[in-house]
Amino acid sequence: MDNEQSESLSPANHLSDILRSLVDYYSDKQNADPKNIYEDKKIFPNFRSGPLEEYRQKASFCYKRMNVLLEGEEHIRLKHKVWQWMEQHPDYQREPEAPNLERTRELANKRHHLLWEQKFFDVNEYLTSPHLLLAFGQAIFSYDFSFSVKFGLSNGMFPSTLVSNGTGRLGKYVAKISDNRILGAYALTEISHGTNANGMRTRATYDVKTQEFVIHTPDFEAAKCWVGNLGKTCTHAIVYAQLYVPDDKHQGLNAFLVPIRDERTLLPFPGVTVGDLGEKIGLNGIDNGFVMFNQYRIPKANLLSKTGDIDAQGNYSSPIKDQRKRLGASLGALSTGRVNITAITYVALSKAICIATRYSASRRQFGPSDSQLEWPVIEYQSQQYRLMPHLAATIALRVATLWIGKANVDMTIRGMMGEDTSKEGMEIHAISSAMKPCATWAARDGIQECREACGGHGYLRASGLGDLRNDNDANCTYEGENNTLIQQASNWLISLRRSNANFVDVSPLQTVSFLNDMNVILQTQGQEHNAAHALDVHNLLKALNWLTAWQLDATVKRVEQLQFAGKDAFETRNNIQVFAAQQLSIIYAERTIYYVFYKFVNSLPASAEQQVLLKLLSFYGANLVTKYSALFYQGGYFRNSSHIELYQQGILELLPVLKNEAIALVDAIAPTDFILNSPLGMSDGNVYQHLQRTIVSTPGVYERPYWWRDVTYKNYLQRAKL
Amino acid sequence: MDNEQSESLSPANHLSDILRSLVDYYSDKQNADPKNIYEDKKIFPNFRSGPLEEYRQKASFCYKRMNVLLEGEEHIRLKHKVWQWMEQHPDYQREPEAPNLERTRELANKRHHLLWEQKFFDVNEYLTSPHLLLAFGQAIFSYDFSFSVKFGLSNGMFPSTLVSNGTGRLGKYVAKISDNRILGAYALTEISHGTNANGMRTRATYDVKTQEFVIHTPDFEAAKCWVGNLGKTCTHAIVYAQLYVPDDKHQGLNAFLVPIRDERTLLPFPGVTVGDLGEKIGLNGIDNGFVMFNQYRIPKANLLSKTGDIDAQGNYSSPIKDQRKRLGASLGALSTGRVNITAITYVALSKAICIATRYSASRRQFGPSDSQLEWPVIEYQSQQYRLMPHLAATIALRVATLWIGKANVDMTIRGMMGEDTSKEGMEIHAISSAMKPCATWAARDGIQECREACGGHGYLRASGLGDLRNDNDANCTYEGENNTLIQQASNWLISLRRSNANFVDVSPLQTVSFLNDMNVILQTQGQEHNAAHALDVHNLLKALNWLTAWQLDATVKRVEQLQFAGKDAFETRNNIQVFAAQQLSIIYAERTIYYVFYKFVNSLPASAEQQVLLKLLSFYGANLVTKYSALFYQGGYFRNSSHIELYQQGILELLPVLKNEAIALVDAIAPTDFILNSPLGMSDGNVYQHLQRTIVSTPGVYERPYWWRDVTYKNYLQRAKL
Repeated sequence: MDNEQSESLSPANHLSDILRSLVDYYSDKQNADPKNIYEDKKIFPNFRSGPLEEYRQKASFCYKRMNVLLEGEEHIRLKHKVWQWMEQHPDYQREPEAPNLERTRELANKRHHLLWEQKFFDVNEYLTSPHLLLAFGQAIFSYDFSFSVKFGLSNGMFPSTLVSNGTGRLGKYVAKISDNRILGAYALTEISHGTNANGMRTRATYDVKTQEFVIHTPDFEAAKCWVGNLGKTCTHAIVYAQLYVPDDKHQGLNAFLVPIRDERTLLPFPGVTVGDLGEKIGLNGIDNGFVMFNQYRIPKANLLSKTGDIDAQGNYSSPIKDQRKRLGASLGALSTGRVNITAITYVALSKAICIATRYSASRRQFGPSDSQLEWPVIEYQSQQYRLMPHLAATIALRVATLWIGKANVDMTIRGMMGEDTSKEGMEIHAISSAMKPCATWAARDGIQECREACGGHGYLRASGLGDLRNDNDANCTYEGENNTLIQQASNWLISLRRSNANFVDVSPLQTVSFLNDMNVILQTQGQEHNAAHALDVHNLLKALNWLTAWQLDATVKRVEQLQFAGKDAFETRNNIQVFAAQQLSIIYAERTIYYVFYKFVNSLPASAEQQVLLKLLSFYGANLVTKYSALFYQGGYFRNSSHIELYQQGILELLPVLKNEAIALVDAIAPTDFILNSPLGMSDGNVYQHLQRTIVSTPGVYERPYWWRDVTYKNYLQRAKL
Repeated sequence: MDNEQSESLSPANHLSDILRSLVDYYSDKQNADPKNIYEDKKIFPNFRSGPLEEYRQKASFCYKRMNVLLEGEEHIRLKHKVWQWMEQHPDYQREPEAPNLERTRELANKRHHLLWEQKFFDVNEYLTSPHLLLAFGQAIFSYDFSFSVKFGLSNGMFPSTLVSNGTGRLGKYVAKISDNRILGAYALTEISHGTNANGMRTRATYDVKTQEFVIHTPDFEAAKCWVGNLGKTCTHAIVYAQLYVPDDKHQGLNAFLVPIRDERTLLPFPGVTVGDLGEKIGLNGIDNGFVMFNQYRIPKANLLSKTGDIDAQGNYSSPIKDQRKRLGASLGALSTGRVNITAITYVALSKAICIATRYSASRRQFGPSDSQLEWPVIEYQSQQYRLMPHLAATIALRVATLWIGKANVDMTIRGMMGEDTSKEGMEIHAISSAMKPCATWAARDGIQECREACGGHGYLRASGLGDLRNDNDANCTYEGENNTLIQQASNWLISLRRSNANFVDVSPLQTVSFLNDMNVILQTQGQEHNAAHALDVHNLLKALNWLTAWQLDATVKRVEQLQFAGKDAFETRNNIQVFAAQQLSIIYAERTIYYVFYKFVNSLPASAEQQVLLKLLSFYGANLVTKYSALFYQGGYFRNSSHIELYQQGILELLPVLKNEAIALVDAIAPTDFILNSPLGMSDGNVYQHLQRTIVSTPGVYERPYWWRDVTYKNYLQRAKL
């Protein structure tokens, strides 16, 4: 099947447009004044000499050009501008000891406001270069997750929900946010309800007499919880509550702007019991809180009324008739949240892979008996296979997260201009519902492997790997718990297939357009006869297309079996997940990531950088085929029992090749040393010097503990005996 | 092949012996006075009513009998004795906030000494009921990992190394340890050398004039590091150093007893620079430290001389001629360490699965449209498939870790009696080198899945899941980094096969005896025609036997290819790891765990408990076959492309069955509520009540932070503007 052909049928060839414009844009920039960025020593400093030099010399390409190809000059300039400011600012200096919970919050609060003051990426920048939002996000999350989430909640999610769901009558609050006078929170989740938003039990009852809403929390299970900024700092919250108008008529879940604390004293108002959820596994700079309302009154005007409003008598009217769709529109902010999570999860993974790869090229252990010097551990096949799959996934995610981020920004802007973006909206909803789990799990597994690949030293808190893991962990859960969220993607694919939809028509982003040929694809078989065939990026795309089609077909068959057996929709959806729908969604995400990476690499001008990216693409694809090899056997795509060995052989051949490119590859995506902040991953590779400095500069490192008598005299044992 | 038959050829049928004696022993105990333990309300209390009742009623068996079958009465009594003591002791009360690093160490130190004072499991107990060591270990690790590791180092590893590697002249130190007057550490790892012990660079030079050793650390890279107890508390350390005798003659790595700090003042001696490694990802109660010696002198007598000694003139002599074997004997403590890690990793996993399973039966979300009540999330297929594989693995590990623990204790005791246990020693070395990685990774993945399965509330530090993950993480690295350690097992298997060894003869524990029929096994094919066949535990054993044989055969072929291509032993070993040797070791461990579980279940008297265990065994085995299904296709064991579907169907059928047994199963392995210490996993299942109590009892939960002006006034922003 000629996949290219089916794509050219697409009326709005967005994927190609986006990629082409990215490439053109960056090439233009590059051609315009190539000296500028490459000679900027703050962006591309000369690395200090050290053990990594040897590997830098082995690389076949220029890491600076690679960085520009992957991210573009403007993107790089903005993130370095933020990083340089942080590095020079006294309140952004790293503390030698882990701060306690209180201090962590204090720092996150202060850093968030200091950053806000700088206006690195304000409304103006958003309107002129919206896609640079991704660079700004990358810049701040690379420093620290907690304060960045706080920044994003306060200056992104809260105001954007207010603007998109509220109407003009709440304009004064928007003004106060712009002045940084109030701080907001987004309160949806309750103690006993998260995923099932319709199950929320906080009530907002309209009182006609006083023209107020009475917000009430029936019991602790209905307390709003997990709300960022609510624990200690917010003054206001957007609270989702079940609206009841006169005659006890229920009007579904609606959003209200609710004052929580006084804007000057930060003391909570009477009727509001607000507290902190306490220490979490990670993200401790954010004060997640809970709140219970006791018959708490707010003005009628505080209903966010874009999707529905009441008149003075409490009569409800809405431009959206379907109550489910109304809620969907109201929860729109969560969709952008998912796209953003995919991007920040890239940040965590890329930092981890930089640390572990540089460490593995610096750390020596064992060696051939005839050698005086031990080998850098990256020379061992087993270590290569621990790192390279995650490095390839990192680069693939670099491309794919910029792609979906830009697609989402474009759609938002076009939506603001009044264009109908419902098709893009649906597709982004589906693909982000699969990519968010896929990316957060890739980061989870990659960070963990990096931790282990750094051995004992990776277990030091100072290595940074524990915090990356603990912070990324939340990404698997919030803005849609992965295992639940993922069903959104499979549901869409199943319904498209069952309704015999035109896959090209529903797919402006081209994530499913190839499935228009699904019946033909299902008939294909792998034609590879050697490792080179298996590593061919076109053949790999064919294999992944087949895999997606086969898994969709198998899942639809399961749906039909269950329906034939009399199961209703609820039961059917529950009972197709294992071995079918879940796997379908992940395969859909992985095939999309591969495809976007494939299109990107193939659209680059011929260069040493393109050659390396092609190898990474091959490697990424061959690992995917290996991962799903049982399905290729089961579905008959593999033509004989040893078919898989071609891919394995290809992977084994690429390992030592990519090993020589690995340091330059991480140089191309690494943040500055100050931002990376791990003695194991500094750009000079002088691991032990940095480790020594880190360890001996910890306060009290050589001191006797204040409880030393508990060790030597142990008087408490005497007491215990009495 | 009749596998039973080949086993009966085994001269020392240890596996069956051990299992039979365990079963007999426990049945005897059970028959003797069944009322005793079952009616002991401190061990088996009546559960308070709550949402778990419904699931307890659904179970087909008695959780108390299950607990006794799995662990035995004596084991249960000892652990509950320890737990009851802890629950009543003021210094074991949980703190409502995470203590800081200093406080964490203080608590771990104190708790360790308090426990020591109680002598729950002293030398006497060890000699009369050595296998109860496993119960004691389980008891203390279930409370907290940090202080237990500290206890184990101080009272296990340090004295046992001193006794087994030292000679009578160090007797006074042994006496001081028994009196709890000195505290020891085990110092092997250096900053730049961990896995490669021979690469250590700390020196011990013998000075004939003064009859002393001069211990010296050439530079920071040779500093001993990661040494538990060294950071803040130890008075002595066993230090491994390269011994040089007169004429600069090198006598290899030897162990020395080195005084570090004064026994009364806890101040380090001159010439010793000792410090703390700082905060780690987990295990922060242990003060891991580093030390550098500056021409530091210790008496000649302080050489641990069992494996080699010098005379006054510095002439070295050893009963073991081969220097490598000498080091191997000297590092023997690490082997028992690995067996113990396998057991404690079970503790972490079992706590996590108890928490997540109980939470999943209590937490409700969504439901059929015709239902008023939402469904407990455990009712969903996807949630079942998140939990049940880990629950089955937990029970399998319960049996297998007791088996290998007991085998190791037996061997140690028989060795002390003068028996030749070299065959058992080799086999335990091999299987523990595979089981330690296998079990620690199973715990790593299981705990993570449990964290995610508990959604947002699982992300609270109070859930306990973060600490379990962070503490278990170290198990993947210490006492042999998993990826390196694992090679010990594959090396052994490969050499046995290549030397055409008698697999029965080398396998008193029967982990490889079945491979005597390897050539026949390689010819077998799966005969399953339906899900029931696929779930049959004998068929599953046959499949796993085939898998192990096939993977060994494939790995040996790779060795031979590489050797044929002219690679030396070093290169060959490096280049067989990916897709071959690593996988072989893990399969060997998993097949062994399955086999031990299989033998255990089949040796039980017929009962409801046995029936449930059989289902778990099936489920565990079917999941293994599914995990390796690509290999079953590749090697031709599967007879057609849809063979795998039989196993998948079997798994899907078992999920709802096991779901009904799950709460009683975790009841059978759960520690007491005080020990489990998670609001999400309490035995009454009243999740939200416990969550509320936990949250609102955190100090300062409702308080305004001391830095509240930073939120509302933000004067630092004004300053920044100036």
